[in-house]
Amino acid sequence: MRLEFFFFIGSTYSYLSVSRAADLARANGVELVWRPFSVRTLMREQNNSPFVGKPVKTRYMWRDIERRAARFGIPFDGAPPYPIDPDELANRVATLAALEGWCPRFAQAAYRSWFLDKQDPGQPETLRSILARLGKDPDQCLARAATDEVRSEYASQTARARDLGVFGSPTFVHGSEIFWGDDRLDDALAWAKANAAA
Amino acid sequence: MRLEFFFFIGSTYSYLSVSRAADLARANGVELVWRPFSVRTLMREQNNSPFVGKPVKTRYMWRDIERRAARFGIPFDGAPPYPIDPDELANRVATLAALEGWCPRFAQAAYRSWFLDKQDPGQPETLRSILARLGKDPDQCLARAATDEVRSEYASQTARARDLGVFGSPTFVHGSEIFWGDDRLDDALAWAKANAAA
Repeated sequence: MRLEFFFFIGSTYSYLSVSRAADLARANGVELVWRPFSVRTLMREQNNSPFVGKPVKTRYMWRDIERRAARFGIPFDGAPPYPIDPDELANRVATLAALEGWCPRFAQAAYRSWFLDKQDPGQPETLRSILARLGKDPDQCLARAATDEVRSEYASQTARARDLGVFGSPTFVHGSEIFWGDDRLDDALAWAKANAAA
Repeated sequence: MRLEFFFFIGSTYSYLSVSRAADLARANGVELVWRPFSVRTLMREQNNSPFVGKPVKTRYMWRDIERRAARFGIPFDGAPPYPIDPDELANRVATLAALEGWCPRFAQAAYRSWFLDKQDPGQPETLRSILARLGKDPDQCLARAATDEVRSEYASQTARARDLGVFGSPTFVHGSEIFWGDDRLDDALAWAKANAAA
């Protein structure tokens, strides 16, 4: 039983999923496959910006995340800087991490840095410090994040998301079935379990 | 314990709430106060159209409603016509119904007509037939829906929604706390119970 977890470091609600999806998947016996992708590219293509120029909806979004975080026992300490990662550098490092098997730890550390320390994990200094704390070589990771291999994997997962009809982050995917939003995680896990052959 | 249910006949996800919120509120001992309002006015003001010009997100929305309806045991038979109620006539009749105490029955009948019979409840003929089936006098109801009293109540609930920071339908309100989306109904009911004094 397998569920793909498409996410973008920079998506606000993805903080909840990055914090809780791994444990919840494990408890349900579902393998979670972490897929960094450029939701920003798809949103631009689809003319679908959820918060830019929408202050009323944006205010609600932070309050909603605060309440949902409290419900799930996830720390929250007010709205962090937004938007972040202008060059999608943190997301390319996440792609490298996914190729090498340390994506969950990296994504969780990047979100802690963003939401709790209020630092943009897409800024090279912040990113270096996150990588060092994870026992990674920052120079080597940043060099690899700039390679064609990593760029092409990031673009390829973005293209897969586009083909699947994804428009937001987080999105959980099982076969051709997609579930958008942290609030669909339970539905997605139930689907993956009920349709294990897909 | 009281929860206000702001909704707009024409909102797709509100079908789920109109179908299930009354029973769920009753089971939780919460009084549900039905509040028709013009989400369309607020969306226009806030430049926040969730689906217009967004075919990828729109396709997902219908599939998501289909799955959620199945989960809740609510009938669903493919996407109905969309958008509907261009003159917000069904919504003004809902406002009349709210003033007179028959809003839940009317809203449920209007949504059944829309989602199951694929008829726009904002079209006068369809509306008349819905009203007749509810034992109401269609001529009288349509005449009253055109009065200043009803128009002003509809505008006044829309203004309250604006002041509360509402941007979508359905929205559940308890005091100054707002919960957007059918998928926040459980959170809203729990909040109303935990903060009964508010």
